Amino acid sequence: MEFSSKLLQNAVYEMSQLPGIGKRTALRLVLHLLKQPEERTELLAHALLKLKSEVNFCKNCHNISDTEVCEICANPKRDETMVCVVEDIRDVMAIENTSQYNGLYHVLGGKISPMEGVGPQDLNIAPLIKKVKDGTIKELILALSSTMEGDTTNFYIYKQLEGTEVTTSTIARGISVGDELEYADEVTLGRSIINRVPFESSIKAN
Amino acid sequence: MEFSSKLLQNAVYEMSQLPGIGKRTALRLVLHLLKQPEERTELLAHALLKLKSEVNFCKNCHNISDTEVCEICANPKRDETMVCVVEDIRDVMAIENTSQYNGLYHVLGGKISPMEGVGPQDLNIAPLIKKVKDGTIKELILALSSTMEGDTTNFYIYKQLEGTEVTTSTIARGISVGDELEYADEVTLGRSIINRVPFESSIKAN
Repeated sequence: MEFSSKLLQNAVYEMSQLPGIGKRTALRLVLHLLKQPEERTELLAHALLKLKSEVNFCKNCHNISDTEVCEICANPKRDETMVCVVEDIRDVMAIENTSQYNGLYHVLGGKISPMEGVGPQDLNIAPLIKKVKDGTIKELILALSSTMEGDTTNFYIYKQLEGTEVTTSTIARGISVGDELEYADEVTLGRSIINRVPFESSIKAN
Repeated sequence: MEFSSKLLQNAVYEMSQLPGIGKRTALRLVLHLLKQPEERTELLAHALLKLKSEVNFCKNCHNISDTEVCEICANPKRDETMVCVVEDIRDVMAIENTSQYNGLYHVLGGKISPMEGVGPQDLNIAPLIKKVKDGTIKELILALSSTMEGDTTNFYIYKQLEGTEVTTSTIARGISVGDELEYADEVTLGRSIINRVPFESSIKAN
């Protein structure tokens, strides 16, 4: 793409560095900003700069937080013997939305992925192991994505915890609520049969 | 969506004001920036701010340009008796890519659209009429999108030019190159029959 203006070209280039934003979309977004009042661009730019420079991570669970210890970790009503291990803040938000969990979280900041050059040392795994060895935690729920990388990370953490007395569990894999059985893949369906639950407990969950 | 951080919430809100970017996509983009080195965010924010504050429009054709008169208008090899009227810079880039046009452009900056509150006074129509009335231009090619708004704008400009000696034309509507006839809509196919061209000229164009 050839541009008539270096300023425009530069803005489009930077915008297209975002994931899932191609050159054409970037141009559309930049032209939209150009048509809007100047405040719009300023608000966006300053919000991003402020977030990046002032962002703070909870020193306990590593979730994004404005305070030193996040609201969830600071809440005395939360069960601190239970920790749910997740990839990032989006997973915390998703689990909080279910209102089914009252423990704390531990945000890893990613998954082990040799393809993308992410090793265990790039994630918040060491602080998690330390926290477990320090005591208090009784159960660790591994709630990572059901992918190769998620499974690798789960297994790595599980191995690191050998010798400790913590109980580890993973969230259940099975047929999604509302799904037709005939369209489910065989691995999921197989796991859902192996890990079947007493009918009474499935009634209570609804 | 509830966020654990006001800074994050604010950045996501501003990002989601861009067209086609919902809250979830905005969160994904912002979290991506958070994972990248700080320079990435700074480069993006400063490129947008710089573009918005220093952007310049060619005083002749109103296209985005770093100089007072854009490269196309300043090129003496261009045919200044021919002006192609387009909506925005993307259309200029698209037509330039064809290498079939050697005249100048006039960028309107939008289309007349009562639904979006865009009237003729919001577009660069008055300077176009003035340019035509001043002389030099012999042919005006109306190259707006083939939509209700595009047709309205074409007609408005055509009406404003009554009494002048300029020739107005619109780009041909017809079957796209590579398209199957059976899938074309009837209006397009009808127009392509009415506006048929001598076979010899269609050979030369290829």
